[in-house]
Amino acid sequence: MENYVYGRNNVLELLKNNARNVSKIILSDGIKGNPKINQIIEIAKERGIVYQFLPKEKFTKFNENSHQGVIAYVSPVKYIDLNEFIQKEKQYKKVIITDGVEDPHNLGSIIRSAVCAGFDAVIFPSRRNALINSTVEKSSAGAINRIDLIMVNSLSSAVDKLKDNDFWIIAADLNAKDNYYDIDYCNMNFAIVMGAENDGVSSTILKKSDFKVKIPMLTDFNSLNVANAASIVIFESVKQTMQKSGNVV
Amino acid sequence: MENYVYGRNNVLELLKNNARNVSKIILSDGIKGNPKINQIIEIAKERGIVYQFLPKEKFTKFNENSHQGVIAYVSPVKYIDLNEFIQKEKQYKKVIITDGVEDPHNLGSIIRSAVCAGFDAVIFPSRRNALINSTVEKSSAGAINRIDLIMVNSLSSAVDKLKDNDFWIIAADLNAKDNYYDIDYCNMNFAIVMGAENDGVSSTILKKSDFKVKIPMLTDFNSLNVANAASIVIFESVKQTMQKSGNVV
Repeated sequence: MENYVYGRNNVLELLKNNARNVSKIILSDGIKGNPKINQIIEIAKERGIVYQFLPKEKFTKFNENSHQGVIAYVSPVKYIDLNEFIQKEKQYKKVIITDGVEDPHNLGSIIRSAVCAGFDAVIFPSRRNALINSTVEKSSAGAINRIDLIMVNSLSSAVDKLKDNDFWIIAADLNAKDNYYDIDYCNMNFAIVMGAENDGVSSTILKKSDFKVKIPMLTDFNSLNVANAASIVIFESVKQTMQKSGNVV
Repeated sequence: MENYVYGRNNVLELLKNNARNVSKIILSDGIKGNPKINQIIEIAKERGIVYQFLPKEKFTKFNENSHQGVIAYVSPVKYIDLNEFIQKEKQYKKVIITDGVEDPHNLGSIIRSAVCAGFDAVIFPSRRNALINSTVEKSSAGAINRIDLIMVNSLSSAVDKLKDNDFWIIAADLNAKDNYYDIDYCNMNFAIVMGAENDGVSSTILKKSDFKVKIPMLTDFNSLNVANAASIVIFESVKQTMQKSGNVV
């Protein structure tokens, strides 16, 4: 299941970014002539990628996914090493860390928001966290091809390394005293840590964090979805950047 | 499928709010003694609600949903009338309108954020929009029982009625000039309108809106998920309220 990309927008996004090897594209007979399909075919021709129209019936085995009649066969996701990421030349880097986000829809959705916000990388542990699969890719609307993906064996060591390299660690925590908008996100490298759906950020990572921030609620129903919470914090950082730069980016 | 609520937290939330008639609760034999289950049973006893432990096998027909061994049979969702909502006594009312949000996960997630933010109602059209079902309920983490649900035949008429009753209409629109944080959300009745996943807010509603706002992006990847976008705008209004009230709510 890991080696397919489903859907018109996702396949188009994948091809445009050329981020991963597409070995073949299959298209359903029924969708010939659709403008997005034409764009897909055009790029496929340019890049010498094999594509093939097949009868609808051939797609039944993929029916659990909403493929919209387009499926691309791709090589596995490329990860980059944390050291390599740290060595990249850039004035300020922005990172999102997921510490135990288990639902692949949430992970995909968080990556999507991070890419919209111009973040540079997503870091996640290889255990007790969703891994990049086709559900994550679909939920990310293709965004996984637009950001550095860093999978680490120890999130604790990764956080140490980030701190050694001038990153500030900002953990989302229901019990924090500071609000997420009390932090100044400008002119620094930072990593926002979002925790598990039920348990939040692990105590090890909380202890290492420079800031703990909460999203204040106006009721006793304190139960934001983790991807929504991530987008609120991520876009506070965007807003501050926009306002400091006089809305010119 | 519309008359069940699945999962420990959802059933517990439902019972605590007593918002809907629960006719029966079934529990899987395997989960006896679990603290949440004990709480559920305690409330069921208090309220005189029938509950029953059944062998695991009886739950197989529900297996497509993550029921965690607890299912409550409930009466259909209660909607309230827009006129009734408008007549309720409250200084300032906050509303979220979904204009063509088709994915029930997104609708549930939007309602969840709205409830966390102390919003008073969600308004949605009876056509071309997800309706309240068990997926919406689950994605809302039980929040649908904590907010007025208003289903209307014509969103356009509903918006007219809101405007006639001192509501400001704020539509999220990719092409807007103003940013979502340029609006002052305090000391007024307002309704935030979120549009369809692909096409945004319909042109009829855009024309009637007092404000059109965008969420600025820091890349050319302008593709936020609608529920994430909603949470960003909703929580900007919370932040402004908190800041104006000196963080005391």
